[in-house]
Parts: sequence; structure tokens; C-alpha cells
Amino acid sequence: MALIVQKFGGTSVATTQRIKNVALRVAKWKAEGHQLVVVLSAMSGETNRLIGLAREIQADPDPRELDVMVSTGEQVTIGLLAMALRELGLKARSYTGAQVRILTDSAYTKARILSIDDQAMRADLDNDTIVIVAGFQGVDAGGNITTLGRGGSDTTGVALAAALKADECQIYTDVDGVYTTDPRIVPEARRLDTVTFEEMLEMASLGSKVLQIRSVEFAGKYKVKLRVLSSLEELGQEGPGTLITFEDDKNMEQPIISGIAFNRDEAKLTVLGVPDRPGIAYQILGAIADANIDVDMIIQNVGHDGTTDFSFTVNRSEYSKALAILEQVKAHIGARSITGDNKICKVSAVGVGMRSHPGIASRMFRALAEEGINIQMISTSEIKISVVVDEKYLELAVRTLHQAFELDQTPA
Amino acid sequence: MALIVQKFGGTSVATTQRIKNVALRVAKWKAEGHQLVVVLSAMSGETNRLIGLAREIQADPDPRELDVMVSTGEQVTIGLLAMALRELGLKARSYTGAQVRILTDSAYTKARILSIDDQAMRADLDNDTIVIVAGFQGVDAGGNITTLGRGGSDTTGVALAAALKADECQIYTDVDGVYTTDPRIVPEARRLDTVTFEEMLEMASLGSKVLQIRSVEFAGKYKVKLRVLSSLEELGQEGPGTLITFEDDKNMEQPIISGIAFNRDEAKLTVLGVPDRPGIAYQILGAIADANIDVDMIIQNVGHDGTTDFSFTVNRSEYSKALAILEQVKAHIGARSITGDNKICKVSAVGVGMRSHPGIASRMFRALAEEGINIQMISTSEIKISVVVDEKYLELAVRTLHQAFELDQTPA
Repeated sequence: MALIVQKFGGTSVATTQRIKNVALRVAKWKAEGHQLVVVLSAMSGETNRLIGLAREIQADPDPRELDVMVSTGEQVTIGLLAMALRELGLKARSYTGAQVRILTDSAYTKARILSIDDQAMRADLDNDTIVIVAGFQGVDAGGNITTLGRGGSDTTGVALAAALKADECQIYTDVDGVYTTDPRIVPEARRLDTVTFEEMLEMASLGSKVLQIRSVEFAGKYKVKLRVLSSLEELGQEGPGTLITFEDDKNMEQPIISGIAFNRDEAKLTVLGVPDRPGIAYQILGAIADANIDVDMIIQNVGHDGTTDFSFTVNRSEYSKALAILEQVKAHIGARSITGDNKICKVSAVGVGMRSHPGIASRMFRALAEEGINIQMISTSEIKISVVVDEKYLELAVRTLHQAFELDQTPA
Repeated sequence: MALIVQKFGGTSVATTQRIKNVALRVAKWKAEGHQLVVVLSAMSGETNRLIGLAREIQADPDPRELDVMVSTGEQVTIGLLAMALRELGLKARSYTGAQVRILTDSAYTKARILSIDDQAMRADLDNDTIVIVAGFQGVDAGGNITTLGRGGSDTTGVALAAALKADECQIYTDVDGVYTTDPRIVPEARRLDTVTFEEMLEMASLGSKVLQIRSVEFAGKYKVKLRVLSSLEELGQEGPGTLITFEDDKNMEQPIISGIAFNRDEAKLTVLGVPDRPGIAYQILGAIADANIDVDMIIQNVGHDGTTDFSFTVNRSEYSKALAILEQVKAHIGARSITGDNKICKVSAVGVGMRSHPGIASRMFRALAEEGINIQMISTSEIKISVVVDEKYLELAVRTLHQAFELDQTPA
């Protein structure tokens, strides 16, 4: 008997028929004798519908009140799944984030989990009851409803698995695992049996969209065994999905690059001609951080003539806001001018194998150059190389790199 | 400065545009210096949509889980109104039933309010903040979400007004007051400036649908000043609505009958040939009450041959359930047979004036007889006379009685 946390996303609960299918899948695991905690997203489209209503009232909806209403999406699906499981003759009980007491900070629309009370859930599990928890939401110390931000249901799943010391956290989605890249762009993309946490972290943050980055961080931090599975496969014919492993236990014949990740939702900003002196990065990014804007790539090249150029990327939706902030601090930091571009994308090659293989970067740049794709920014880490290119080259760049690193071929 | 509780129903918040209109109406009262607590229903149609989803999963949805999901309807509207008020530059804060801590019993889908914690609301009101509360819902001692049943938002409004000792509880609806009967059936129906609590109680329970009966009972019990108003009238052109008065302070020239109420959602059940001995009513109705079915009219006539017939009416939706229960207890109570009819309706003449005017009943029966309407059951109280007739006579009976008691004419 294992304790398993299962998380089903919006497409898996998009209709009452699909919720019944989820119930059958959960029931199958239950029949095998496992204790189950099921985390649900809202029906797909529902969160956007609610945000749309809010925007009809306020262009920039009040975050506390937005969380009050947006959190209802998951509250509907947990009730429905509890009914579906009861209809199958099983004991089941739904919990909102506040009812579990998933305590978060008060950063509405992007709250962080502080602690989880496992008492009520434990009592239910010990009583043979399937516990169903609304993903994406929590409650702050003042009793206000909070949400964890987009994709936060994954984080809820992993956080519950950590709090309950679950044997495995299964993330059910509409794909049957993690792929070498998006099969909609490269039909030859292959499912990976395993991927390391570090790779997954890079893949997720770069926009592979299978798992939310925070959930992967959480899983890494608390050593939660995470598996990505499809909720659309026929019962009895499920594949193994992709297991996210902690150790780099691949052998030396492993592929150097595991996948090509990309992100369309990027925008870059450049502060030109800032004095090349200590503290300048802080002065620029401090103002951005104060506005709660997440910064992704940060690039500063060596200066000359006592000045330097400083570039960074943000989510495209925060582009205008970030630009306005830079214009405000421009005089204070002594910058010459501010430029930006929100028609860019980021493409990355990810793989723990590159640590031991030099020459990966040049192979990547050559492949892009041969297709005439101009590289605007480059950023590297231990296990990934990212480039920013014009948005129009996204698909071409991904296909080119997928082929250049022979990702369509099963490793020997 | 007064403390006013305002309740807006589903049609008043059916769209974001209407929610903005509600905000303008609330803002107008706020500008006059009042402290405001606003109670909202779900957008019209939303509660039915949610119940429909539940029924796609379970024919008879689990009540605890139904409350979890159905309570989301109000959670959406309170968030939206808070945003709309903030957009007008006002301070506003939304509360779910659990956040206020509207403590109820655990009778899911028809919970009763036990207590209301006014602390957080008071602090907000003292801080110039408009308090917005989700109607229709509460929380039980175990932290489970409960709902008060259909129309429960009125009850929330009145209960909050009682707990806060508000100066007035305004129920905004899509009609501009309480009418002598439904104007859709009788175009000559008139708006009443005042109606007594006792009359309103009879009108509401008989299906006038302007106010929910429990809210009127609550208002009467805690002496809450209740006013029915329209939320659809232009700002600045609002009518006075109908004030529900405590005292029978009408003069002697008052009309004998205040209104004709009716209820389509009725079904009657009859237990034939039960032994005419003490305890038989309890044996029959005890089983019905145990199933949480509300009984409306109860009629038992004098017996003969040691047996009697026992009839009662229930809400039509509970007809099959009630019939099944009677079949079960039939042998135990020694009844000859069970009959029922769910194609009936109830029509009532209501008025405190009838206390001092004999002959009202015969006037009523004569008017119905002249139209050839057969009366199946009769029940009377101090201030109303109800008859059960075939459903097909509903409109005719209402029109006939409205005219017979000259309700189309303004009293002298």
C-alpha cells in the first residue's frame, strides 16, 4: 500500500464525462489498495472566463477580490469529483485550500505556501476515504483566500505529497510524458522515460508547459518522486509516463541534450549606457522586483567608455509595466536610453550531459546560423544554453536544434 | 448616518454591467453617509447551471459536495462587486459565509443559521469600508461549507441586519414592491405601500416569491425593518418600495384582503382509512419529517367507522419521495391505501383585515364556484384562507379572487 497524490489538470476535468473518467482512474488505484489524495484544477477555460468577468469590471482587477472569485473554479471540480467517486461507491471528501489549511503568504494571485496542516487529510485517509483537494489555492493568516498563480495546481500536488510524505506524486495531463520538444512543432519528438530534476527545472521554466516550475522546485527540495502521466489513455493501457529522477544516474552513453525547450511569452528590455559601477544591476532590477515582476534572463556585457548596456527578459504580459518603470528610474540611474522588444522568443537546449561535453554551444550556434537565424541574446547555465531570437523564427529554431542534436533518434 | 443591509438578487447581478449598476446604487447610499453591508446572490442561472453539472454526475447529488460547488456562485459576484466599488474609489471587502463566520447547523442544502460573528464586519464598517457578503451560505462547526437553500440570500441579509442591529434591511429585487398578486397573471395588480409581517409571511410562504419565508420569519423574530425595492429603477427615480410593518397600524377602512397568493409547486398526498386514534398524525408525519421533507397544509377530517382520511401537501419536487415513504409505513399505521396528486396548486386570500370581517370565506368560495372551479382542500388561519384546486385553474382562480375582493382598486 502506497500513499499517492494524483493531480489532474484542466483538460482532464473539462466536462462531467471526463470527471467520471478521472473517478474511474482514481478508483482503479484505490482498488489496488493505495491511499489517495487527488488535486484538481478548474475545468479548462473556467479560470480565463472568471478573469474575463473581472476585467469587464476592472482593467487591473483588485488582486484580493480576484483570488476570491478565481478560486471558485477548483471548488466546483472538487465537489463534482467527490460526487463521481461516491457514485462508484467509494468514500470521498473534498477540501478547499482553506479547509485543508494550506497556509500561504498574502501575495494575492501569486502566493507562496508556508505550511500545510495534514491532520484532517490523515484522518480521512486512515478512514479509507479518498481526499480531494482544490489546487491552486490557499488561505493566508488573516483568513483571506489566496491563489498560487497560473499552474499552481501542480504546486499544490507536490506540496501535499511533501507534507504527507507521499510515495509518489503523479501529475496527470493531456500528454503522456515529457518530450524532447513540443510534438506540435517537431512531429519526431520522443517521450523521455526519465528526465533529471535539473533538466525538468530548465524545461519547465523555459516553457515546456508540462509541469509548472515551482512544483518541480518544490519536488526537488522535498525529494518528492514526481511522474508525468496522461489522463487521456484508456484504462488498462496506460504508459509509464516520464519519471523525474533525482540523481543523474544515466550512463555515459546518454544523450548530451535531453530536449529543446522554448518560450514564446518573452519580452526583452535593454538599458543603454548606464555607468559601469557597482550597484547598477541592483538599482535597475530592484525597481522591477519591487513591482513584483519576475525577471528571466539577465545579461550584462563588459563595458567601455565607463558605461555598459544591461538587458533582461520578462514575461510578455509585464512588458509595458517594466518599460514604464525603467523610464521612471532612467534619470536616477544615469542611463542614456531604454529600448525593448516584445516580439522575441527564447529557445534552449537542455541536458545534464553537456557538462561533460564541450562544444555543445558552438554546435548549437552553427546550426542556427546555417538557417540564417540571428541570435539576439545568449545565456548559459551548467545544463542549458538559451538564445533569444525573433519570434518569427521560433518553430524553425526548435526544429533545427532538435535535428542538430539527433533527438528524434532513440539513444542506444 | 444609518447602518443599512442591502441584498441584491440574481437578476440584479446577472451581468457585469448590472453589477456596475449595483455599485452605483450602493455608492449613492454611501455618499449619503450610511454604513453599508451588501449581500449578493449568484448571477441568475448560475446556481441552476451548477446543480445541472452535479446532476450529470449524480442523479441525487451528495448534499455536502453540492454545497461546496453551489456556494461558488455567490463567491464570484461578491468579488466582482468589490472590484466595481473599488473602481468607483470606495473601500470594499468581500466575505464568504465562512469568512464572516456565519455559523450554521450541518443540514447541507438547507442549513439553519446558528450565530453570526460581527467582529470583522464591524471593524471594516468603522474603517469606512463597504462590507460585501456572499448570500445563501455559511459554515458548520466542522468547517464544512453549507447553504441555506433556495432564496437563502434573503435570509442572510436579514440575519446580518439582526446581528448588526442594522437600521433597515433593503431587499432589492426585479419588482418594485409587494403586489396584491402576480401582475403577470392579473395586470390590474397594485403595489402595496405597506404590508404586515404576518401577511408577508403568508404571502411569501404561499409563493409570491418576492421574499423567502425564512427571511420574513427572521425579520419578525428580530424586529428587522424590512423593505422590498427594485434594483432596476433609474438612480434618482427610485420608488418607496413596500415596507413590511410590525404592527397592524392600518385604520379600519383598510382593505379586508391585502393580496392573493398562490403556489404552483404543490403536491397532495392522502392516507385513506387510517385508524382514528391518538398518535396517528405523528406516525404519518414523523416519517415524512425524518426524511427532511417540509409539509405545508395538513388536513384531517372527523372520522367514521373508526377510521379517518389524512391529507397533506408537500413541495412537488418531494412528491415521489413522500409517496414512497407513505407506502413503506402504510402497513405499520394500518392504512387502507395511499393516493396522491401532483397536478394541483394552492391559491390563498391573505389579509389581517379578515380577522374582524366574517363572511370572507363564503365570499371566496362563491366566487370560485361561479367560475366552476372545484375546491379539493381548504385550510384556514387567522389571516388567510387557502384552497387547493386543479393546477389548470390557477390563473382563473387568482383573477377571480383578485376581482372578488376588489384588489385592483386603491383603498379610500
